[in-house]
Amino acid sequence: MREVGIGIAGFGTVGGGVLSILRRHAGDIEARLGARIVVKRIALRDPLRARAVDVAPGLLTTRVDDLVEDPAIEVVVELMGGVEESFRLVSAALSRGQHVVTANKALLAARGDEIFRLARARSVDVYYEAAVCGGVPIIRTLRESLASDRINALTGIVNGTTNFILTAMAERGEAIGPVLAEAQRLGYAEADPTLDVSGGDAAQKLCVLAQLAFGARLRPAEVLTEGIMGLSPEDFRWAREFGYTLKLLAVARRCGPAADDPRGVDQIEARVHPAFIPEGSLLAGVRGAMNAVVLRSEALGASMLYGQGAGAMPTGSAVVSDIIDLTRNILAGSPGRVPLPPEEPLVSLRPHAEIRCAYYLHFSVKDEPGVLARIATTLAGRGISVAAVQQREPPEAGAPVPLVIVTHEAREADLVEAISEIGRHASTLRPTRLIRIESV
Amino acid sequence: MREVGIGIAGFGTVGGGVLSILRRHAGDIEARLGARIVVKRIALRDPLRARAVDVAPGLLTTRVDDLVEDPAIEVVVELMGGVEESFRLVSAALSRGQHVVTANKALLAARGDEIFRLARARSVDVYYEAAVCGGVPIIRTLRESLASDRINALTGIVNGTTNFILTAMAERGEAIGPVLAEAQRLGYAEADPTLDVSGGDAAQKLCVLAQLAFGARLRPAEVLTEGIMGLSPEDFRWAREFGYTLKLLAVARRCGPAADDPRGVDQIEARVHPAFIPEGSLLAGVRGAMNAVVLRSEALGASMLYGQGAGAMPTGSAVVSDIIDLTRNILAGSPGRVPLPPEEPLVSLRPHAEIRCAYYLHFSVKDEPGVLARIATTLAGRGISVAAVQQREPPEAGAPVPLVIVTHEAREADLVEAISEIGRHASTLRPTRLIRIESV
Repeated sequence: MREVGIGIAGFGTVGGGVLSILRRHAGDIEARLGARIVVKRIALRDPLRARAVDVAPGLLTTRVDDLVEDPAIEVVVELMGGVEESFRLVSAALSRGQHVVTANKALLAARGDEIFRLARARSVDVYYEAAVCGGVPIIRTLRESLASDRINALTGIVNGTTNFILTAMAERGEAIGPVLAEAQRLGYAEADPTLDVSGGDAAQKLCVLAQLAFGARLRPAEVLTEGIMGLSPEDFRWAREFGYTLKLLAVARRCGPAADDPRGVDQIEARVHPAFIPEGSLLAGVRGAMNAVVLRSEALGASMLYGQGAGAMPTGSAVVSDIIDLTRNILAGSPGRVPLPPEEPLVSLRPHAEIRCAYYLHFSVKDEPGVLARIATTLAGRGISVAAVQQREPPEAGAPVPLVIVTHEAREADLVEAISEIGRHASTLRPTRLIRIESV
Repeated sequence: MREVGIGIAGFGTVGGGVLSILRRHAGDIEARLGARIVVKRIALRDPLRARAVDVAPGLLTTRVDDLVEDPAIEVVVELMGGVEESFRLVSAALSRGQHVVTANKALLAARGDEIFRLARARSVDVYYEAAVCGGVPIIRTLRESLASDRINALTGIVNGTTNFILTAMAERGEAIGPVLAEAQRLGYAEADPTLDVSGGDAAQKLCVLAQLAFGARLRPAEVLTEGIMGLSPEDFRWAREFGYTLKLLAVARRCGPAADDPRGVDQIEARVHPAFIPEGSLLAGVRGAMNAVVLRSEALGASMLYGQGAGAMPTGSAVVSDIIDLTRNILAGSPGRVPLPPEEPLVSLRPHAEIRCAYYLHFSVKDEPGVLARIATTLAGRGISVAAVQQREPPEAGAPVPLVIVTHEAREADLVEAISEIGRHASTLRPTRLIRIESV
């Protein structure tokens, strides 16, 4: 039976998952492929650390170059994480004509262009299903199923850590501090949770997805990114009041060319931020650490993919699917069968100032006549139209009064200016809180 | 540029969708494939009927054999529906070495075995994404993404017509008659809705899905099938009372080998029936004519695919994806790259009597002492354990009293016997209503 040799770089949680899936399903995989997938080498940092999965010591090496230099290895599986070292490995592998499977969204978001260029030049494949939303087959769907369709919007819950935290806050009414601490205790959040709670992880994933969905070429720093640390139990109470729930969304949306663009190149909005979404909506039903992506496309209309975004087995299963798919290409002699993202970007980024959204605005104002009128006038002066207002009794005499306004869709720049002007009103006692509203 | 010639048989709604998608995205498709997909011939019954899509008259023929006999046609796209004529076409095409795309679940459910055998013998491909759940990429996901995983359960809302009807009944409290009439008026239900409302359409789809998910070989008649015509507004009121909503589900579930099977071949349950599902669950959020399939697999855990199950564009888009995928195989010289369902079945069907489910039981009984005790005793005698009970005041003096019992999981045969015995109690005034409960 034909053998396809693979090398695995990085042997943490996901690496262990990959190895145990390959072992457990070896019979099935052989029957389906008519070939055997053989792990030839595993590169890891500390060969002495105890592991959940037993490995023959002879397979292990601390030199990743051993994978690249081994002519029996046709596929290099990069599970190291990080950008510098992993780029060195992946580019060396591609240059030698090895195919690559990677679960590394940071690498793709930062240096995807160079990687895809190398792969094209050597006619080898790069598969990366596990890089975004672990076990949710969103990469395959974007690369293959939708070849016949045109995507207009992509809205996702792509970070399990923050969704776990927001679900707990919504259901238990607690503040973010204790919930984050619990998430860390349960292993849903890292000791340093910054990348997740800042929205940075979601922004990296959005870059990878937007490239496939729209042919965009974005760096994470270009994505409008707001994290969840500023959210309070009060925001959740107000969300419920208006029939919403709060989620951290990654949104990319096609919005036509800029008015002054003679070439008529479509722009996309790209943003990651907490958002109010309607309580009955599908994404509102995505709880805990689960992930989901809603696509809106011309032929298909709305569709959604849902599943576990992280964990050894879901992510490992995505990596193994990629290995199998690549092996099929190798056996059929058809590498490059499914094209990589387009070399030249097909869309440009709409400036953040031009983003259009509905907003929830939470003012803290003096309890005196004329305050609402002044705020409403300022909003109207910028063309911002009010959809709903609620004013509460002050919690105690003399305390700031909460005044909540939900707007219709407005231009981000207009809204920012209006908020800044209202901030200068003598009756505004605290900074205004602003949360975007998505109808998904 | 290389051309791949296709022939389309059947030119109704979906055929029109396919043609307009191929035309509208011709540039994109060429750029992605490096080849041109050319429609060489369209076979249809009545060439004079007015159509939404313009076609050069020279392309049209009333002889489907023209597609098979044309050496320039490499892919035959079967959109005729029905079983006899479409089987004749598909088998003729495969025998001549043409690849086939079909949207015909009835054909696959009835004669899939023969079709796959022919395709294997000639080393050609059969693609059928559009046969189940239109634009939801469930076939591709089962064939490819999950090659590395083992599926334990598949639960779907796979019929848009019945989901439209049940959503309206749940939201408006109306009876099925007027809601069905409305669905017909709006084009969501056929003039003869039998195949949909009987669950027959869902059973056909379940056969196609279970073959890919479990390697099962089922005929629709073997699937335990109950339709929705017996559901009443009262069932929906009771569903809400217990925190459920009512959906028509297609369920296939792996349940281990039979106790007396020395070979230890796994069995699966296969059933289509209305079911109570928890109100907050993901499938409960699938409204109107939308479709969704939840998979539970070993590595991936729970995952869901959601989208439009029918309509010219969603279904057309699935057909075009298949055409593109097949064209990639043709260009790469890699037909048969993704294997067809296994030739020998890998599981057998668990007898319906052995199915295990929780049940909602609605008794109509005399308002007299001892009735509840007698029913509870009968259930207990068959090993059926009660999870919840509610008894209502009779609507008027002397009228039957509604007594509702929710059971824990029980064996279907035990339950049927208990119900039949309770039916013989003098205090039982009307036939007992029974609806299965799924926790999805």
